[in-house]
Amino acid sequence: MERKRKILVTNDDGVKAKGIGALTEMMREFGDVTVVAPFEAMSGMSAALTIGKPLRLTELKSEEGLRVYACSGTPADCVKMAMNQLFTDEAPDIIVSGINHGSNASIAALYSGTLGAAAEGTVYGIPSVGFSLASHSPKADFSAVIELGKVILNKYFAQPAKPGVFLNINFPAVALEDIKGIAFSHQGKGQWIKEFEERTDPYGFNYYWMTGEFFNLEPEDESADHNLLEKSYVSIVPHRIDTTDYSELERLSSLWNL
Amino acid sequence: MERKRKILVTNDDGVKAKGIGALTEMMREFGDVTVVAPFEAMSGMSAALTIGKPLRLTELKSEEGLRVYACSGTPADCVKMAMNQLFTDEAPDIIVSGINHGSNASIAALYSGTLGAAAEGTVYGIPSVGFSLASHSPKADFSAVIELGKVILNKYFAQPAKPGVFLNINFPAVALEDIKGIAFSHQGKGQWIKEFEERTDPYGFNYYWMTGEFFNLEPEDESADHNLLEKSYVSIVPHRIDTTDYSELERLSSLWNL
Repeated sequence: MERKRKILVTNDDGVKAKGIGALTEMMREFGDVTVVAPFEAMSGMSAALTIGKPLRLTELKSEEGLRVYACSGTPADCVKMAMNQLFTDEAPDIIVSGINHGSNASIAALYSGTLGAAAEGTVYGIPSVGFSLASHSPKADFSAVIELGKVILNKYFAQPAKPGVFLNINFPAVALEDIKGIAFSHQGKGQWIKEFEERTDPYGFNYYWMTGEFFNLEPEDESADHNLLEKSYVSIVPHRIDTTDYSELERLSSLWNL
Repeated sequence: MERKRKILVTNDDGVKAKGIGALTEMMREFGDVTVVAPFEAMSGMSAALTIGKPLRLTELKSEEGLRVYACSGTPADCVKMAMNQLFTDEAPDIIVSGINHGSNASIAALYSGTLGAAAEGTVYGIPSVGFSLASHSPKADFSAVIELGKVILNKYFAQPAKPGVFLNINFPAVALEDIKGIAFSHQGKGQWIKEFEERTDPYGFNYYWMTGEFFNLEPEDESADHNLLEKSYVSIVPHRIDTTDYSELERLSSLWNL
């Protein structure tokens, strides 16, 4: 009999989000699941770590094939905590993060706590994958992600990404039958604009809420992840943790002649 | 007469850190400086954004050629706040972040708030540079960084990095005369190990401090930034904000045959 896989599940929407429940359900078919996820929503946390204040780790559930912990830190903290405190004898076979409530395509990848956790897993040399659905609704329907996610993970287990690379998989918020296909793609160019809403507090001082609109910087590029997503494709982008621009290194190195 | 440059200065150690004072001094020779930096230390914040709670922006100083603001958010928030609220008529010519108290070479680049701010500047299409000194001391001596930093910035203004790329410049914590040279390099492989110190609170519950030791995963590679730094070189790494691994995209795309 095959050895059961050991799986670490995390996210950035918090341990009680519907998306991580869906991901846990999906992953239990692949092996024994350990969930370590933030107590609270940690969207936009990127690969941030908690330095200067202590962390807590609380067991919420322990049953055959499933243990669930909440951690007071960021998504990347959750992965570090799991690796150092729970997976001390044997590393997980895979780390999956999500299913995020909201797209992590284009520039969202830079800010995403979901992908910050996947990056952290990659630092540990563990195959790591982030799943996101392009709907911010707390009640979003994750059934298509679960269905196709299993197909994608079977491909992944057979032929994983190389070390140093994690996958960022984004699903359109449409029913399974309306999904046009699954496509490898690249991180599209975009940025947020009009980012703050300014208000005045009861004492007469200004404060700012981060809001913003997404501005598509390459609307014509059909291979960009956010454009594929918009056209109801599932997008898969391999991201590097070594973010050196090697061609720019060569170019500047010869130009500057230091 | 040449138009005066407009310069945005930020950091992750907080507006009162010695390092940002040194960077402000250095940058005033290049133009008019606006400082927007976190109220508090924000080390390890990566490109994190503040979502779900409001931000404050407080003017601390305004004189000829220098205005200083503190922001309640992360380093990336500071850049967004500056771009949206202060540089509304004309974008800055350059965004510089630091001088960080501590190295941001190797895997530290992933977690660095200093570089999170530089990444954010790059998203806005502004030439962006992070400066760090390999000393965590609050009283670190930044004089060599200021001296060589000006040499490097003159090169940079003459021949900047291409759009989508920021520079991560790390200085060894040695006197100017002991610096061996300035070298372009790549982000070295490394990770933190033994990351938590477990303690018990007065009520009998465990908590964890993030600590850790740096583990060098490529001690032999003389072109890796952390190894150059160790040998008293100043290291310059160009980092991308598009972190797609294009060769892995091609490889997986043909292997998986979706």
